[in-house]
Amino acid sequence: MTTKRGNAVPPLDEFGRIRAWTEGRQSQEFFDRAGVTLGIGDDAAVVTDSPGQEWLLAMDTMVEEVHFRNETMGAEDIGYKALAANVSDIAAMGGFPKFALVSVCVPPSWDAARMKRLYDGIYACAERYGVAVIGGDTTSAPTHLVVAVTLIGTVEAGRAIRRDGAKAGQFVFLTGPTGLSAGGLHGMLRNGHSEKSSLPTPSRLIQAHQRPIPSVKAGRLLLEQGWGASLNDVSDGVASEAWEIAEASGVRLRLKETQLPLSGELAAYSRDNGLDPLDFVLYGGEDYVLLGTADREYEQAMKERFRSEGIPLFIIGEVEEGLPGVFAETAAGATKPVSKRGYNHFPKG
Amino acid sequence: MTTKRGNAVPPLDEFGRIRAWTEGRQSQEFFDRAGVTLGIGDDAAVVTDSPGQEWLLAMDTMVEEVHFRNETMGAEDIGYKALAANVSDIAAMGGFPKFALVSVCVPPSWDAARMKRLYDGIYACAERYGVAVIGGDTTSAPTHLVVAVTLIGTVEAGRAIRRDGAKAGQFVFLTGPTGLSAGGLHGMLRNGHSEKSSLPTPSRLIQAHQRPIPSVKAGRLLLEQGWGASLNDVSDGVASEAWEIAEASGVRLRLKETQLPLSGELAAYSRDNGLDPLDFVLYGGEDYVLLGTADREYEQAMKERFRSEGIPLFIIGEVEEGLPGVFAETAAGATKPVSKRGYNHFPKG
Repeated sequence: MTTKRGNAVPPLDEFGRIRAWTEGRQSQEFFDRAGVTLGIGDDAAVVTDSPGQEWLLAMDTMVEEVHFRNETMGAEDIGYKALAANVSDIAAMGGFPKFALVSVCVPPSWDAARMKRLYDGIYACAERYGVAVIGGDTTSAPTHLVVAVTLIGTVEAGRAIRRDGAKAGQFVFLTGPTGLSAGGLHGMLRNGHSEKSSLPTPSRLIQAHQRPIPSVKAGRLLLEQGWGASLNDVSDGVASEAWEIAEASGVRLRLKETQLPLSGELAAYSRDNGLDPLDFVLYGGEDYVLLGTADREYEQAMKERFRSEGIPLFIIGEVEEGLPGVFAETAAGATKPVSKRGYNHFPKG
Repeated sequence: MTTKRGNAVPPLDEFGRIRAWTEGRQSQEFFDRAGVTLGIGDDAAVVTDSPGQEWLLAMDTMVEEVHFRNETMGAEDIGYKALAANVSDIAAMGGFPKFALVSVCVPPSWDAARMKRLYDGIYACAERYGVAVIGGDTTSAPTHLVVAVTLIGTVEAGRAIRRDGAKAGQFVFLTGPTGLSAGGLHGMLRNGHSEKSSLPTPSRLIQAHQRPIPSVKAGRLLLEQGWGASLNDVSDGVASEAWEIAEASGVRLRLKETQLPLSGELAAYSRDNGLDPLDFVLYGGEDYVLLGTADREYEQAMKERFRSEGIPLFIIGEVEEGLPGVFAETAAGATKPVSKRGYNHFPKG
């Protein structure tokens, strides 16, 4: 049979490519324990249900030149972070991450070896959080790499921590400092684009950007103890996440600038470069700590338990009645509105 | 607080955009019936489990200039087909489609009105197959639109029809003619690129390409009756799907060229344009009929039941022992190997 619609046969078909990147990465024993009946290689994966649990479904996509550039993220970092962003979404509901589907759109600039490193990163993150990679697809792309990940998690039925549970009188908390990831990106872009860069970017900031740490343990603690009234992960910046809680819950959040955690590295980097660290702290995304609200009566117990578990906990403000909005109280006692603006990796302005 | 990392505020933030495209599309009552505890608008969606069922998870992505061009697919068609491709994957396991997550990466050439039409197509397909759209994400993209869809379906525990169940002695079947979608694309590209086009492309072929019909009913019948031993949907062409069954099952598939269903429209289009219709039938993808194998003892019952249900059924070959492979028997009785080559929308050759 001749092929009049003739075209070059690619070196590997879709399943060949997927196999080359995924085969032998996770054991059948792990799949069995995780509840995977059928993994990669059929039209759909099959997983078994867990009695008394509900399923959490999250999907998060990373696009070359929108979410990362090759001078700021290695191939392994990109894979790691694509999965970590989704793990963080499950953490923000108080759930356990379980199964991942990975879709990659691969442009000519990404050869097989580079894609293999990307999958190395995906599997490194999967191993750390006990996630079974069970499917997905791979296509070609004209110019830019796209990695879309769907993550399925579980949570005790009826107990997922939503963003609409904030109530007046509660306090606002953060489970870690923010702005580090944005600071790291800022430093890498500056060093890459200017010879005038005076001081190296602290490695903790770069690490925060390239290998973020989702807060699964903190999310579970907040759910198990019944402390979390509302919860978001800081993927899009404290300001944006606080706005989402305020709007979903119909409340006003008042943050205290002096109580916002500021890492020493970010303070030093900002000072050395003449920048306002609060811009990073409030508007930098992808730190993957949790922002939430809880009843005042739990404050002491939460502080003690988080301390004993080695998880940071910062009380950064309070929930008030009023039209949905977010305000910041300065050190001098003035109140300013906090803009709703989200995180933009590579601003044009 | 000044914004030193200043950048233009987009007209709508991510949630604003998603809301504009998705709000009010599906009712709370439908969500309740479908088992959706929490839909679009939090870090993750929440769905309840169904006792005695397993979950099917499929993910399929469409990329501008790889899977479609704007001269061959309208915005609504693209949305419809992105979901339909996933519905087809669930059908190929014998399952029910249930919940969808949609991720879109939107380049500047896709404005809000055009994106709305794309979502019109997604929801038209969702309504037809009873799918609840419960989440996803939206990002910008530098140049090309990407639509990634994850579809979650259910199937009776332990009963999903896999591709590795083919056995020597079984017959090979198709639940509809193939090559129509590829013929439609061929015609649209030809008419778009040449003034010499003699005859219009039959609308049935164009319709097959733009609005494919997944085979959920056929898949359910094959599972409920216990007839389907192995099953694939024809997303990548009969040749490629037959190869997948052959390799997964460790058998040889012998197809009979004279028994491959050929639609009158495709036969006419091929004749008028001096093309071999078999190239479309064997190597054209995205027809979303089902290719499978079944035991000989079921042949008569299957034929009768499919006829009474109004679903086509074509017996196109048989399963033999041997090294994995696919062969075609010509009208003259000769045997030729069938290439493993998959479907390529826009070949460069």
